[in-house]
Amino acid sequence: MGFEDILHVIKGRRSIREFIDKEIPREHLTKIVEAGVWAPSGSNIQPWEFIVVDDVKMIEKVKLVSPGLFGNPKALIVICVNRAKYERGGSQGRLIALMDASMAAQNIMLEAYSLGVGSCPIASFNKLAVKELLKIPEHVEPVLIISLGYPSKWPDPPKRRPLKEVVHLNEYGRPYEG
Amino acid sequence: MGFEDILHVIKGRRSIREFIDKEIPREHLTKIVEAGVWAPSGSNIQPWEFIVVDDVKMIEKVKLVSPGLFGNPKALIVICVNRAKYERGGSQGRLIALMDASMAAQNIMLEAYSLGVGSCPIASFNKLAVKELLKIPEHVEPVLIISLGYPSKWPDPPKRRPLKEVVHLNEYGRPYEG
Repeated sequence: MGFEDILHVIKGRRSIREFIDKEIPREHLTKIVEAGVWAPSGSNIQPWEFIVVDDVKMIEKVKLVSPGLFGNPKALIVICVNRAKYERGGSQGRLIALMDASMAAQNIMLEAYSLGVGSCPIASFNKLAVKELLKIPEHVEPVLIISLGYPSKWPDPPKRRPLKEVVHLNEYGRPYEG
Repeated sequence: MGFEDILHVIKGRRSIREFIDKEIPREHLTKIVEAGVWAPSGSNIQPWEFIVVDDVKMIEKVKLVSPGLFGNPKALIVICVNRAKYERGGSQGRLIALMDASMAAQNIMLEAYSLGVGSCPIASFNKLAVKELLKIPEHVEPVLIISLGYPSKWPDPPKRRPLKEVVHLNEYGRPYEG
């Protein structure tokens, strides 16, 4: 098996909030959503549901109830967790489902970037309104919206806390020497 | 900017629970933890802290309090969220911090795989005991442990719910045609 370091892909991804007027090929959209399905999942429960929104009018409606959604993306992927899948997991169930769904979201954003498609994760939206718009049943909860489209530009990297501040070795507060 | 589809990397990653006795080069461990720092973060808060555990005795101690930790990994990355970073975010703050940390975890596991290193995300561990072992302060909460090492083999892919079951188009229950 040949391995290839993808750190440049992970570091290159940016959150995109301005998009140009160019369609995403359907086969790329399919690859992007397929990436989500391959996230790890606690006990392989796979609590996720993905709603692809590519209808322009529906995107506009979702934007109206989503303060965190900027620009004119060509598609949205609404990431949901399905309570019927995780409720047997007890109090930890929903937490692990949220983690699974977030890992799926990261797969989606990295795969998008690797195809030249910009994305942004959005947590600030009216859940009840989105549920009603997309006819999401009671036991399914939208937790993140990923906007997708070609960026008008790739922004500079955001400032990041330095490694020496966030990475510790064998105990908290002991510096990690890279 | 040249883009390269990484879907094979995303689909190739596996959760690994048996490791061979081979050290991870320090420069690879550094790349793996650096990948975590480049996850998206709501309002760029970066609520994460990463504790790299490579001391064999400490790994053994963490194993004793972590029912979900299998095999003999060469390193652990304990992913924490720092309440001091997210508490101004109100009730949504911790939730978004958990999502950020989970996306960082996925970056870590994908980067590891891309370097040939196996990993497994572990949510089943005694948080209080891990806090005590690693001298984690009160306001910092370990949420996931990632085990790392070279696998004794790459397992077959786990069964996944088919795309036509988990992907919906423009409304829940309406099939997405790939």
